[in-house]
Amino acid sequence: MRTSQFFISTLKEAPSDAEVVSHQLMLRAGLIRRLAGGIYTWMPLGLRVLRKVEGIVREEMNRAGAIELSMPAVQPAELWQESGRWEKYGPELLRFKDRHQRDFVIGPTHEEVITDVVRREVKSYRQLPLHFYQVQMKFRDEIRPRFGVMRGREFLMKDGYSFHTSFADLQREYDNMYATYTRIFTRLGLAFRAVAADTGSIGGTGSHEFHVLADSGEDALAYCPASGYAANVELAEAVVPATPRPAPIAALTKVATPGKEKCEDVAAFLGLPLTQTVKAIAVVRAEPPQGTPAFTLLLLRGDHELNEIKAQKQIGEFRFAREDEIVAALGSQPGYLGPVDASDAVSVVVDRAAAALGDFVCGANDAGYHLTGVNWGRDLPDPGTGVDLRNVVAGDISPDGAGPLELCRGIEVGHIFQLRTRYAEALKCCFLDENGKTQVMEMGCYGIGVSRIVAAAIEQNHDARGIIFPAAIAPFAVSIVPMGMAKSPAVREAAEKLHDELAAAGIDVLLDDRNERPGVMFADMELIGVPHRIVVGERGLAEGRLEYKGRRDAEAQMIAADAMLDFLKARLCAA
Amino acid sequence: MRTSQFFISTLKEAPSDAEVVSHQLMLRAGLIRRLAGGIYTWMPLGLRVLRKVEGIVREEMNRAGAIELSMPAVQPAELWQESGRWEKYGPELLRFKDRHQRDFVIGPTHEEVITDVVRREVKSYRQLPLHFYQVQMKFRDEIRPRFGVMRGREFLMKDGYSFHTSFADLQREYDNMYATYTRIFTRLGLAFRAVAADTGSIGGTGSHEFHVLADSGEDALAYCPASGYAANVELAEAVVPATPRPAPIAALTKVATPGKEKCEDVAAFLGLPLTQTVKAIAVVRAEPPQGTPAFTLLLLRGDHELNEIKAQKQIGEFRFAREDEIVAALGSQPGYLGPVDASDAVSVVVDRAAAALGDFVCGANDAGYHLTGVNWGRDLPDPGTGVDLRNVVAGDISPDGAGPLELCRGIEVGHIFQLRTRYAEALKCCFLDENGKTQVMEMGCYGIGVSRIVAAAIEQNHDARGIIFPAAIAPFAVSIVPMGMAKSPAVREAAEKLHDELAAAGIDVLLDDRNERPGVMFADMELIGVPHRIVVGERGLAEGRLEYKGRRDAEAQMIAADAMLDFLKARLCAA
Repeated sequence: MRTSQFFISTLKEAPSDAEVVSHQLMLRAGLIRRLAGGIYTWMPLGLRVLRKVEGIVREEMNRAGAIELSMPAVQPAELWQESGRWEKYGPELLRFKDRHQRDFVIGPTHEEVITDVVRREVKSYRQLPLHFYQVQMKFRDEIRPRFGVMRGREFLMKDGYSFHTSFADLQREYDNMYATYTRIFTRLGLAFRAVAADTGSIGGTGSHEFHVLADSGEDALAYCPASGYAANVELAEAVVPATPRPAPIAALTKVATPGKEKCEDVAAFLGLPLTQTVKAIAVVRAEPPQGTPAFTLLLLRGDHELNEIKAQKQIGEFRFAREDEIVAALGSQPGYLGPVDASDAVSVVVDRAAAALGDFVCGANDAGYHLTGVNWGRDLPDPGTGVDLRNVVAGDISPDGAGPLELCRGIEVGHIFQLRTRYAEALKCCFLDENGKTQVMEMGCYGIGVSRIVAAAIEQNHDARGIIFPAAIAPFAVSIVPMGMAKSPAVREAAEKLHDELAAAGIDVLLDDRNERPGVMFADMELIGVPHRIVVGERGLAEGRLEYKGRRDAEAQMIAADAMLDFLKARLCAA
Repeated sequence: MRTSQFFISTLKEAPSDAEVVSHQLMLRAGLIRRLAGGIYTWMPLGLRVLRKVEGIVREEMNRAGAIELSMPAVQPAELWQESGRWEKYGPELLRFKDRHQRDFVIGPTHEEVITDVVRREVKSYRQLPLHFYQVQMKFRDEIRPRFGVMRGREFLMKDGYSFHTSFADLQREYDNMYATYTRIFTRLGLAFRAVAADTGSIGGTGSHEFHVLADSGEDALAYCPASGYAANVELAEAVVPATPRPAPIAALTKVATPGKEKCEDVAAFLGLPLTQTVKAIAVVRAEPPQGTPAFTLLLLRGDHELNEIKAQKQIGEFRFAREDEIVAALGSQPGYLGPVDASDAVSVVVDRAAAALGDFVCGANDAGYHLTGVNWGRDLPDPGTGVDLRNVVAGDISPDGAGPLELCRGIEVGHIFQLRTRYAEALKCCFLDENGKTQVMEMGCYGIGVSRIVAAAIEQNHDARGIIFPAAIAPFAVSIVPMGMAKSPAVREAAEKLHDELAAAGIDVLLDDRNERPGVMFADMELIGVPHRIVVGERGLAEGRLEYKGRRDAEAQMIAADAMLDFLKARLCAA
């Protein structure tokens, strides 16, 4: 390809509303252009990247035995009513009426449609298992679309759905997809991690997320290098501390801590480690069990963070208490709350790490005062080993006991999920088994955010000069930058010859024949992330040589012109 | 591919609501499944066909120098307001509000969006010409979707838009696209015809439609074998008859024609040829010129059909008159209307063929009576040569004078159009010319109905047993049908070996390993339109031979097993 026959449109500055680096670079490199909030045109350069990601995903899905089809973007409301999601799904589900006033949605996902297809087509166990997938633009009406295509409203998704006669067969396909996703992200050339994920209301353990690792990632991930355990921090279990709770030594003492409302401030004021403090988070349960007060104190060690998903699993739906509710229940302002001598109108739920403390510090339910030397069993009811309420932190022991956890951040780009019979049951997607008995199908679903991968790849791979695309998804693998092509017939001829030679060898090459200044061409090729660059100049040609520079290389090197093809092939294979 | 790893789902009977043969066969062959009115899932088999069409379109668009991008399906209303189409477009334009109550549409077409992209990206004549295209699912909220994907609501479209500094350069690209479309439909293996088309309100002559020829086609096409002239009948000009109007011979006579309201009946009753009669069609103009009555009689020869598009070009927007309006204006019931002695409140517009008649018959404006021996100039004002109001018929002289026209029917699958400055002006899509002067860009647009092509190909190519796909777009090029594979290891081995051999040679082969009865497998492979079939049976194998049958062949033939690959290659190349 030649730039003169293509469309390159780079910007010196990113628009000021682009908050994250991938969004800035995608705009600057001209990969995308904004049409409306969260809605982008994929420009020719960006589309090349998107199609390369899509191509790898498709190849590996086919190799894994999944069968591609294409479902409509527009779906009738009836199916969503049948599955119950018409009511449950929030305003992210874009609903509209057609000209006949019938209700439709623009599908953000296709569980209902594929289940409808399969219940009509499949009658017998002999037709199963089946795994259908599609690659399709989807729409989710995000309340605050941002970060470009990272959290856009219109996005390209690979979504697959498998159907089985048994849970065991679903698990087999789930493992097949786990391996397939691992191959896909490996082929994409991205550093990634598969982590166990929360299964929400479906339950069970059958869900993994695939994250592209990047410091800017929205999700925190915990993993154990010793065992390979990995989980989203949302899910990663904080185990019962190995060291048992120490026996009480200090006496319960009320101390003045004027103006010290945070554990950090209290610990510093008292000259105690933060790990010796306990914070009380006041919440109100939506549906407490009979006899249990709705107003609840969640107790965590001062250095720990509440994990709301875990808390919800323990006490059900809840909300944070308002100040007036706190004052009414405990007679104190927030900042000085504690469980000691709390009234019967307060329930207390204790995190495992907090439950393992002795002689700790907590609020005295009296503004400006804390208690020191607090001990479970003596000053308070014994909570036993407590429950898991907090996010794990680096150094925590892995739930499998294998060693300390480490933390990193990731961008979720894939999700595999054992749906079990959630949709098949609602939509009556059944089959006749070997004995002629009607059974509900087991289902799995498997998603990859194709357009999001492009942004995630850039978050992970960039420098001050621009994008550094992995070779497999770069818009072009090699750029040829001629010096003074317009004036030098030798340079033009050599550049054209090299272009044709590389193109004939199946290498995705871009000849920059725009006749711009060298600085402009270099900057553009670096900005758009072409991994390999060849400079054709008169001086080098006089010696039969061309200049080569890898996108991550510090220095360029001279390569004999007639050895360039082999040199590049070796580089491209290595990538 | 093996059927056991794919998904074939054929039906014995087509659902009763499928009116046309392509819709019936697409359902029976399992290419598509209905989700809602005009909204279909492309099943794996259908998607293979769709992707092959898409692939050929993309290859030829790229070869022609067009650059692919991908615009959003969801578009903000503002752009449509800017172009004026927010008001003008009917309810086919699906409009909705997002969660923030902002207006959007699901794009049925992308003139506004691409013009917005280009006006932001292109500033200088040096960046032009440009031609961007995309292949995308679009949505048009048809009031009565029907014929399956032929007139669906969600459909796959290739839409391209070119931008130019001058009309001459637009014409150059228009010719390039005419040639490209010709290559595309040739490669698709379809009998087609490019015809001049009506340009509607844009004017000019720069519009051609590409039609797949089929007797069931919705459009009538006129063409002249002698010159290559071809046009949609909507547009094809009916020229002034070569023979001049004969001089009056008969006297004007009022004759009783009781109950004879149609020209056919009057001609038969009077023993005259239908071509000697004139019918009067009463219409009311929306905006008649000052001094011209709105009530108008359109006069055509009795054997001719009114062409409403032509009439509209002559008299502007109009509607057919109601019976009470007719009685008020002419004092007669419909069926006996005529121009003789019509009041000043009636205007008369005469078709060219009617204007060339002498001694003709028309209604007497008196129920049960007609006039014979009517002559222009004597009994009526002379209309001169008249105007073109009618559809051409077979045998009419071609507008280029080259010879008689023939008629055929077609399905419109492509449309190229010189938009000129219609959108560029509304959206201020401008460039600076060589003299630094701001100019409005010239635009062309070029569409191909990718999903409709699949239906059109079937309308053109089918028989009682099913679809006969052209090789280029068949879901599989070759099927292998083994006889008794489960019982015969020799058959299984030979079938598997042949499958692997063909697949390795890059041939799109389907091995039917379902172990169904031969009749079922034969019927399915014929129904889904696989162009080449090989039967592997024990008897043939004993002689080292395989049975071959082309989908259109009357008889099968035996081919030496070791010559089969070369035999097939020759057949596939010839196709």
